[in-house]
Amino acid sequence: MLSFTLSATDSLARTGTVQTAHGPFATPAFMTVGTQGAPKGITPQQVTEHGGQVLLMNAFHLAWRPGEKLVQQMGGLHNFTGWHGPILTDSGGFQIFSLPGLRKVTDEGALFASAVDGSLRLFSPEEVVDIECALAPDMAMVLDECPPYPCDHGHLSRAVERTIRWAERSAARVADRGLHAGGNCGAAVSAARRPEACTTSFFGIVQGGCDEKLRRRSLEATAALPFAGLALGGFCVGEHIEDTRRGIAFIAPKMPADRPRYLMGMGTPEDILFAVAHGLDMFDCTLPTRNGRNGLAFTSRGKVRIKNACHAASDAPLDEACGCYTCRNFSRAFLRHLLLAREMNAAILISLHNLAFYFRLMQGIREAIGQSRFERFRAEFLAAWESGAGVEEK
Amino acid sequence: MLSFTLSATDSLARTGTVQTAHGPFATPAFMTVGTQGAPKGITPQQVTEHGGQVLLMNAFHLAWRPGEKLVQQMGGLHNFTGWHGPILTDSGGFQIFSLPGLRKVTDEGALFASAVDGSLRLFSPEEVVDIECALAPDMAMVLDECPPYPCDHGHLSRAVERTIRWAERSAARVADRGLHAGGNCGAAVSAARRPEACTTSFFGIVQGGCDEKLRRRSLEATAALPFAGLALGGFCVGEHIEDTRRGIAFIAPKMPADRPRYLMGMGTPEDILFAVAHGLDMFDCTLPTRNGRNGLAFTSRGKVRIKNACHAASDAPLDEACGCYTCRNFSRAFLRHLLLAREMNAAILISLHNLAFYFRLMQGIREAIGQSRFERFRAEFLAAWESGAGVEEK
Repeated sequence: MLSFTLSATDSLARTGTVQTAHGPFATPAFMTVGTQGAPKGITPQQVTEHGGQVLLMNAFHLAWRPGEKLVQQMGGLHNFTGWHGPILTDSGGFQIFSLPGLRKVTDEGALFASAVDGSLRLFSPEEVVDIECALAPDMAMVLDECPPYPCDHGHLSRAVERTIRWAERSAARVADRGLHAGGNCGAAVSAARRPEACTTSFFGIVQGGCDEKLRRRSLEATAALPFAGLALGGFCVGEHIEDTRRGIAFIAPKMPADRPRYLMGMGTPEDILFAVAHGLDMFDCTLPTRNGRNGLAFTSRGKVRIKNACHAASDAPLDEACGCYTCRNFSRAFLRHLLLAREMNAAILISLHNLAFYFRLMQGIREAIGQSRFERFRAEFLAAWESGAGVEEK
Repeated sequence: MLSFTLSATDSLARTGTVQTAHGPFATPAFMTVGTQGAPKGITPQQVTEHGGQVLLMNAFHLAWRPGEKLVQQMGGLHNFTGWHGPILTDSGGFQIFSLPGLRKVTDEGALFASAVDGSLRLFSPEEVVDIECALAPDMAMVLDECPPYPCDHGHLSRAVERTIRWAERSAARVADRGLHAGGNCGAAVSAARRPEACTTSFFGIVQGGCDEKLRRRSLEATAALPFAGLALGGFCVGEHIEDTRRGIAFIAPKMPADRPRYLMGMGTPEDILFAVAHGLDMFDCTLPTRNGRNGLAFTSRGKVRIKNACHAASDAPLDEACGCYTCRNFSRAFLRHLLLAREMNAAILISLHNLAFYFRLMQGIREAIGQSRFERFRAEFLAAWESGAGVEEK
């Protein structure tokens, strides 16, 4: 069911459309994080009204609570969460290897103890495919091993090999379930084997840290499998940003051009512009809502810490260039007041603005690529970004 | 600027319109509580879209933070908070006498220590009028003494007399400022004395607990002053609900018929129906949003505790009879999941539904009064209210 069409390229940067059973989204795309099925403090309607097209949820968290069987019984994630546009579920590899609760990792899978009730559950590649099929998102990540940072070469190499074996087993499970991993669900299988209305397409994950040989090995093996898209995992796990960027610059352009390329879990506006410049298409990050809850706003002239006294009597919006609900209706002075009074609306309104900021950034990126002026757009954006309230940060 | 027009009565119940400089609102009206300038978790847009017409804020809290001078500098509460419909500010009498921080009460006023920074401030009747004039709501309550419960007759009597003296001083301050307490701001005063664009009308407050003589004394003295509306304070402070009701039934019908009658700070749907039946016009209560944050929903078939396991796999909305955003888009199962996962959206979506429930209740009340069938409406509403999920409560 998933298809990807490029409409323009500008040097390595690309713009296009991913078509899913729940509508299209334009790339480069920022996926709004809704780990538990909802963006924090923001309704689906607010996401849509401000330009968000696709939500990212977390299969690992949802498998623990409320459980994939309940979600399936409720008709899948779209029916359950009330978000009727495209959904991607992360497999939770990152969470399995970073949250407390990991008991044992073998080739079979990762044995994990629930933070909710202490119960044990084996997350094998096959089990994760089954969980995600029950959740029924449009796109789903396979299980990977995301090693900690720092990590010696042997450990990193073993994680890459295991991630490859797990990807092969995931693809086999997908085929076995009668799904076409490329998303053309059920086209080649009998109706009897085809899960009802199944439209989930799977993405593979490339690991390897900042090691170019391992990254290349991981990419080649994963790209050989019939995944609908490919993702870069294992970046932004603690390494220096210069190493991250070198790694992205090395591997991103080598990813298959005809499938969407997803950079998992990062980043800042600068990160996204850098990654787009190297040919990446999809992004997600908790920054807009997490920073929103802490009173940090993204604006076209840099970051604004609304708690700072300089905003106490400011009747300016967070961002003069922004047309979001928050900027159309509320001053910095009022948002600061709400934050100091610990009112929920501070978190809500600043998070909403931050999401709108990201959506507008992505729209600007897409338009610039379409008009072959991406590098100028990037330079102008960064010049403005660093010109203004960045001063406040120092 | 404030005018009140009755369009229909049905026995003691009345329906009409209060006209303010920021538009009209229909009575009986439920005022959404936005103590610090914002309803908790709900945007002004959501209030308006779901039928809310008037917001209640708290002059006492706002005087401490961000301070009335800042609000005035920002153009008054409407400009500051982004709510452009009618606003009523409570004077904070209830908070002064119930929150920790009260240092001394004399005839002069109440000396209060800030919970924000410990500083002392004397809240005199004149100071409160000045604070509210700076905040510039459409309607403002004068300062009253709200005694604790239980309270001996002598204390209650002295509080009534002081509240009367304070009301007289408040009215004098209002006149002295060149405002017409009845709301016809500046009509009879020179432009030089008239505060720019001042449109605040003041309401007096009737105290006296459950003592009929004291209530009558308080009402007669307060009604003699040129206030735009009259309110009943000092109910629902700990006394038995039967005493509250007896008190309301005694005093409400004796309030002047040509001015809006406001029952402060209560209540439940049953309370509101009871009070409307005795001729009250305006209400406010924190229940819809406070209960919303705790996962308790009001529905046409009683209260629903969404945390209860019986809702775990329910694809029903909170209320089949409700057309709010929450009920149109989210199941009980999903709301329960959000609540258990401690997601902000649980509080937001249930609070929004609860407010919509109150707004729809008030609309039903107004229509019923207009069609001379209020008692039938009340009986049918209460029968349905007690029929359904009330079971769940037991």
